[in-house]
Formats: sequence, structure tokens, C-alpha cells
Amino acid sequence: MSTFQSFLKQPLSVSVRSTLRGAGQVMFQQSAWTGLLFLAGIFWGAYECHTPAVAWGAVVGLVASTVAGMLLNENFEDGIDGLWGFNGILVGCAFPTFMGNTWQMWLALIFCAMLTTWVRHGFNNVMAPWKVNSLTFPFVFCTWLFLLATRYMHGLDGDALSRPALDLAASSASLDMSFGSLVQYWLKGIAQVFLIDSWVTGIFFLVGLLICSRAAGIWAAVGSAISLLVAIAYGAPASSISSGLFGFSPVLTAIAIGCTFYTVNWRSAVWAVIATIATVFVQAGMDALMLPYGIATLTGPFCITTWLFLLPLYKMDKTSDPNHSSWVKDIRDAENK
Amino acid sequence: MSTFQSFLKQPLSVSVRSTLRGAGQVMFQQSAWTGLLFLAGIFWGAYECHTPAVAWGAVVGLVASTVAGMLLNENFEDGIDGLWGFNGILVGCAFPTFMGNTWQMWLALIFCAMLTTWVRHGFNNVMAPWKVNSLTFPFVFCTWLFLLATRYMHGLDGDALSRPALDLAASSASLDMSFGSLVQYWLKGIAQVFLIDSWVTGIFFLVGLLICSRAAGIWAAVGSAISLLVAIAYGAPASSISSGLFGFSPVLTAIAIGCTFYTVNWRSAVWAVIATIATVFVQAGMDALMLPYGIATLTGPFCITTWLFLLPLYKMDKTSDPNHSSWVKDIRDAENK
Amino acid sequence: MSTFQSFLKQPLSVSVRSTLRGAGQVMFQQSAWTGLLFLAGIFWGAYECHTPAVAWGAVVGLVASTVAGMLLNENFEDGIDGLWGFNGILVGCAFPTFMGNTWQMWLALIFCAMLTTWVRHGFNNVMAPWKVNSLTFPFVFCTWLFLLATRYMHGLDGDALSRPALDLAASSASLDMSFGSLVQYWLKGIAQVFLIDSWVTGIFFLVGLLICSRAAGIWAAVGSAISLLVAIAYGAPASSISSGLFGFSPVLTAIAIGCTFYTVNWRSAVWAVIATIATVFVQAGMDALMLPYGIATLTGPFCITTWLFLLPLYKMDKTSDPNHSSWVKDIRDAENK
Repeated sequence: MSTFQSFLKQPLSVSVRSTLRGAGQVMFQQSAWTGLLFLAGIFWGAYECHTPAVAWGAVVGLVASTVAGMLLNENFEDGIDGLWGFNGILVGCAFPTFMGNTWQMWLALIFCAMLTTWVRHGFNNVMAPWKVNSLTFPFVFCTWLFLLATRYMHGLDGDALSRPALDLAASSASLDMSFGSLVQYWLKGIAQVFLIDSWVTGIFFLVGLLICSRAAGIWAAVGSAISLLVAIAYGAPASSISSGLFGFSPVLTAIAIGCTFYTVNWRSAVWAVIATIATVFVQAGMDALMLPYGIATLTGPFCITTWLFLLPLYKMDKTSDPNHSSWVKDIRDAENK
Repeated sequence: MSTFQSFLKQPLSVSVRSTLRGAGQVMFQQSAWTGLLFLAGIFWGAYECHTPAVAWGAVVGLVASTVAGMLLNENFEDGIDGLWGFNGILVGCAFPTFMGNTWQMWLALIFCAMLTTWVRHGFNNVMAPWKVNSLTFPFVFCTWLFLLATRYMHGLDGDALSRPALDLAASSASLDMSFGSLVQYWLKGIAQVFLIDSWVTGIFFLVGLLICSRAAGIWAAVGSAISLLVAIAYGAPASSISSGLFGFSPVLTAIAIGCTFYTVNWRSAVWAVIATIATVFVQAGMDALMLPYGIATLTGPFCITTWLFLLPLYKMDKTSDPNHSSWVKDIRDAENK
Repeated sequence: MSTFQSFLKQPLSVSVRSTLRGAGQVMFQQSAWTGLLFLAGIFWGAYECHTPAVAWGAVVGLVASTVAGMLLNENFEDGIDGLWGFNGILVGCAFPTFMGNTWQMWLALIFCAMLTTWVRHGFNNVMAPWKVNSLTFPFVFCTWLFLLATRYMHGLDGDALSRPALDLAASSASLDMSFGSLVQYWLKGIAQVFLIDSWVTGIFFLVGLLICSRAAGIWAAVGSAISLLVAIAYGAPASSISSGLFGFSPVLTAIAIGCTFYTVNWRSAVWAVIATIATVFVQAGMDALMLPYGIATLTGPFCITTWLFLLPLYKMDKTSDPNHSSWVKDIRDAENK
């Protein structure tokens, strides 16, 4: 029986739940309620920023990648756990953020969101021998290619992308360091995981995390705070800091290392803090790498840093939290091979 | 007994046949006649474009990489199947296309063509665990390095390369959409597999494919047509489309997925069409990636897209066509490990 | 018992010896005396060039990465053999060479040097299936990210980096080809392994190699000579040649292929010469790749070329020199899996 038929035989609520879990899995949470709160935060922020297409793109990308998993007869359990949707929803947020509202964009959005489903399968196959996962890299890799393609395809309007440049434009803007502002930067760091520039959305996301896993909520908060501290100490550009652009990758690294792959304890906490700090430097480095292309790093810095901290395969206790079981399962499968 | 000695013991015709098969294997055809027609097409196009060095470079590269395989004692069967020559002949086409006619260029051409033989061996070792093949990536990787090196080495004259740029030069040229022109673009898409800008050469190549495998000929034709359609719908630059530069990678993807690795049937046909469409976007994205360097993507978009569609290892019937046996053999070897 | 405790239980001299061996292992020599001579050469050159921070950075990086190995409970034998320090000492040379003397630089230097220790562990895990080693790539990879990060972080002052550019600045400088000058370029090619622009340092390094392994000293000398020849024949920029910037990667390739991984004999000698020539082209190609970023290739060309020549896994005799045992051990471990 195909995966598509299996889903058809379930009540509709199962498909809806699996789809919503896809939103939650962007931050490693296998909870439809978390996913719903994430979507609510996206809608709030997208409408606040007068870019409603971002919110609707998220829905379209989420559904397209989930349906692709069913059609391609991907593993049924993965579908139930929401592992098809998290790359697709990010594609759906990124395309309308950086591209103009053309019919070709929407077609490409659907195509690219579906593409991430089998690219994830392929990348996971590649990484299985080392017991790591492709994380959100299928989204990053495929979206990079389409963002680059805007330069060569008039049907994809990349006017919202940065101008390609050799040097970072000099800026005399200094960072507003009042307590209220710092709190906003800190919340935006969490909101930017879904490319949303709104501190209210950050609250939605934090609540979404906390209702599913206290540890994840705390690590997201700590990760954003650490990244803020390091970015300020090392003099990162004020505009990037105040938009939360130095926060989103460290937030994901902190959740991944701090409580998703390893049990929460002192050893994993120290490891997560070091990894979070490293992510800030990787973020700055990759920002520079993107400068001649004018495209965003997306969550690339998170992926690369998290791999660097997982690949040594240090003997640390694996998480036993059932909420994260789908992430550790891949590792267990690789170990049993 | 070494591979070199084994070849010496055979009649000369065996070495000639194996070398010609190397030309055919660029499009996955293990036929010396196909290879001969490909070479004829290259000579026609090179002389038509007043760049005879491209044709002679092809011969030199083909022979150099084949001889390298003998000297390095590579697997004898691979040699008989023509698997050493296909990267080398492409090196031989690319060097005189992009570099001036200096003695250093010819020495580097021979060196680089031979290099591809053991780089292919190394890359295939790397990819064996995932049952994919390095395809033409040894050619792409090595040639990229030498094309880049022209910027630093006066002995390699890279004046025929594009100027490095941050932005694609604006162009008001619009595409001639008459039926006759479209047919020319479509044929040039096939001819550009060997970097030849001539629609007549495209006919040579199509005939070469058809005498060996009807399916390969049809997929090449379909692949070029699909890429033309997508490139026009997404507003790719007129000059690139009219030179067939959006066609050559999709043509190779279509042959690879449509009839080389999988049996020809409806499932593989759908998969090949999706892969061909994806290749057009990867082509546009990689074109943008090369912009600050002014070098060509070569067949990189074909390699990357084909890997993305093979790596999920979906259960599809492997081809049983003996013409493609050398390509599926690697996969079988990996499975038996 | 943890690795840290194991080292504490040894006399202090063991820790000192292991640390110094880390300096020697940059050129594959497991000898504390070689390491000491290398350090002496670094100090001589750094003070001669009025950049003493480079010498002290080397010491700090060497110690930081070695201590990281102890704290992280890395394999005790690796520590004794000096395999933790060689990436760290290179980080320590590179940071003050390219960055200004800020407290953030020194903090980042220590962080990055320690980072290389577990990144090396992770990269070695990744490469184990193909029986190759990450060589100095952990240093290259991590340092690239921090050098790029200088563009985005005012706390890291990258004024000593080249300006990002699309084209190599035209230069009318011609190379002084007198015998004395050629000898200096040749010695600087060896000195630049540690980023030192001083021919006297090259003598220190040559002597350091010769007291540990005659073969290594000869291959370093031959490697630098070959690279000089190829760079001149292909018209590389005079300023790069005269600073030894075309020599350091070929020197390392020559030692690696010529006498570290394979037994010294005619077959490995021919292979080493070809690999050394290839490294020069890879160097020129990667120089061009770095142009839009203004950062250095570091020892990246050495790593890439050496992998290309090891990955085919041709059956050549492995070295039995105990001096190089720690490098071949990884390969043996991979074979026994």
C-alpha cells in the first residue's frame, strides 16, 4: 500500500496534524499545536510587515512538500512525524520574502518546496554513515539555487535581494542599546528562524516552543541572548543585529545541541553554549561569502555549525524525549546498519 | 599483466574502438560509431565557427585521457567500455574554447585530460557508498580550476572567458521566436554538450545517438525541447537561449534519468521530465554563481541535478540495456559490497 | 581515566614534547626537535618582518589546540604523537598575519585554535571510509570563516587582508631571475608553509626536516623547486612567486605523497612529482577563487590536490617509517573496519 493511500485511509485530521507538525519541526518540535502557533506568528508578522504573500507562501510550501512526501511514497512514519514539511514551509517563507509576486514565482515555489522532500531523502542517505541529519539544508541548498537563478530569469523578480557587492556598505548607524530595544532584538532573533522581522512573532514562537518542550523554549531564549552578546562584543553591523539576523541560526543550534540530539545535562549544556558562540562567527563568515551574490545565508550557518559539533561523535547521552524521537531515530538507524 | 600490456596484446582496432567509445560515453553511448559521429559533428562545428583548435583539442584530450587509463593500470573492462575518454574529450573541447592558442595551453590540456582519469577513479570511490557515479564531474572540477588559473597565469590566455562581473549585463535583445529559429536553438542545445555553437552539429549528435539507442535520441530531443520551454517561460537571457546554453545540461539529465540508469517506462519518464525541468533552474543558479569569476558552468548543472534525483535511491527498475551496462555496473558493484 | 588525567600523570616533559611535536606535524614530522626548529624559524621570521604577534600567536594557537585535545578526552595516542597541535599553530600564525591586534582577535584565535581539534576529529570521521585524512583542512576551513567574518565584525580588523576584487591588479613588475633571487624564492616557498615571508626561516625549516627525515627534507626542497619552475613557465605573478606563495602548498604535497603516505621508491616519486605540478595549478585556480573575497587560500590547494592523488587508492606500498606512523595509522584503522 502506498504512503498516499495510507494517508487517504486515515481521518483527515491525521493529515492536518502531520502537516502542522511540519511547521513545528523547523524548530524540532513534533507538535501540531506548536506548528499552529508558529503559523499564527508567521501570519501576524507577515501582515505587520505588509508582506502577506510570505504567510500564504508558508502555507503553500508546507502543503506542497507534505503532499510530495505522500506522492513519492516516502516513509509513512516520517510523514506522521511531520518531517516532510519543515523544509517546504521555509521555502514558502523565503520565496515571497526575496522575490516579486509573479506567477512564475508561485510555480517555482511549489516546485522547489516539493523538491526539498526528495533532496532531503537524498541528503539523509549521504549523511547516514556519519549519523547526522541533513537538518534544514535541503531548504538552504534548493533556495540558494532559485535565489541565484533570479539574476538570470526575468520571470523571477529578485528586486528584494541585496545588490551583489564586494564590500559591505559602510554604515554610521550605531546600535540602540536601551533595554527595550535589546529585548526586541532578542525576540526578533527567534522570529527570523522563519524570516520574520517582528518581535511579536518572536513571542508566538517562544510560546509555541514552551507548550511543547520547556527545554527547547529555554535554549531558544538562551541561544538568541548569547548570539546577541557575541555579535555586539565583536561589532557586527547594527542593522543586522537589530533585525535579529545574527540570532536565528544560533537559536536553532542551541535547540539542536542543547536538547534535541543530546539529553539535557551539564555536559550537553556546555557543548551547546560553545556551538552557539561558534554559529555567530560562521554566520558572519557566510554573510561575507554571500556578499558578491546578494543572497541570504538562510539557515546555512546553523546546519554547518551543528554538523561540526555532531560529527566528532563524542559519547554523550542521546535524548530520550519522545518529542525529539524522530530526529534521533535517523541516528539509531545509522548505528544499526 | 598490466592494463597497458593487455591493450598492446589486442589488435590496434580494439584500442581505436575503445577510444572512440570514449567520445560516445559523453552521452552514455558505448558505441564507437556514435563516438565517430560525435567527433564528426565536433569537427564540422569547430571549423564552421573558425575554431579548429577545439576539434583537435578534442582528439588530443580523448587520446591523452585514454592513454592515462592504460598507463595507470586502471580496470581493463572500463577501458574497453570507453569510460576513460569522456572526461578527457570534454577537457579537450573546453580548453581551446576558452583559452588562447599557447604551448602552455596544450601542455595543460594534456595534463588536465590525463588528470581526469584518476580524479574520476577517486570521485567514483567517494560516491560508491551511495551508488552514484561521478558522471562528467571530473571534467567539470578540473577544468574549472584551470579556467580560474588563467587569471593568475599569463601562459594561459583566458581572453575568451567572460569578464568577471557582479551583475549580468543588461541586454535589450529579444528572442527571435520564429519556428526556424526555435529549431536551431533546440539543436544547438544538443550540440553544446561538446561546447559547439552549431545547429548542424546538433543533427550529427542526434543521429549518433539514434544509431545506438532510439531512447537516448528521443530523450535528448525531449530534454532540449523542455529546457527551451522552461527557459523561455522564465525569461532567461535571449543570447543564452539562442546559443543553446540552457539546453546541454538538461539534455544530459534527460538521457541519464530517462534511459541510462532506469528502464524506460512511465515512472522513469515522469521522473526524467521533473529532473530535466529542475536542471534548467540549477543551470540559471549556477550561471549566477559563476558571474564573479567569468567562467562557464560546464556540465556542472547536469551532474548536480542528476545526483539529486538518483540519491534518494527510489526503487525504480534499473536498465537492462547492454549499451548502458557500464553505467549501471558501478551501482551493482556498490550494492554487492 | 580521561585523557587530561593521563597527561597530568605523565611528567611535564611529555606534555611539552607532545606540544612541540604538534609544530613538527604541520610537515608530517613526529619530532619535538623538528617542532622546536620550526618554532625558532617562525620567531626569526616574525621578528624579521616586524610582526612579532605572528610568533606569539603560533605559540598560543599550538597550546590552545593541544589543551583542547586533553579537555575533550581525545585519543591519548594522538596527543602523544602531536596530532592536535598542527592545525592550531597554523591558526595562530594566520590570525595575526591577516588581522589587527585587538583583544577580540586573541580571543577568537584561541577559540578557533581549539575548534580545529574537534573539527579535525569530525572531518577525519567523514573521510575515514576512503582512507584519507583531513590533513590541515580543519585549519583552512575554520580560518577561512573567521577571515571572512572580519568583513562583518569590526572587532576583527581585517585591514591586512587584500581588497576584494574581480580582477587581479595588473602589474608590470618582472621577476628578478638572478640565481641568488631564485634561491630566496625557493627557500621562501618552504617558509610560507607557516605564512612566513623570510628565506632564513626556510633554512630553519629545511634543517628541521632533515634532522628528522632526510626524505622529507629532500622532498620539501624538490617540491619548492618544481613549483618555482612551473610557476615561472606559466607566467604566474612576479610578486607571488618572489614571496614564495606558489611554493608552500606544493612543498606539503611533495612531502605527503613522496614520503609520508607511501614508501620512497620510483613509483611514489613519479606520483609525487605529478601531484606537485598539479598543486601549482590548483593554487592558481584557488587564488582566483579567493579574489572576490580578498582572503588567502591557506593550505587549501595542498589538501585538495593530495586528496585527489590519494583517493584513487592505487596499490602503492604504504610507508613503514615510524616517523610517519601516526599518518598511516588512520588509513590502517579505516581498512580494518
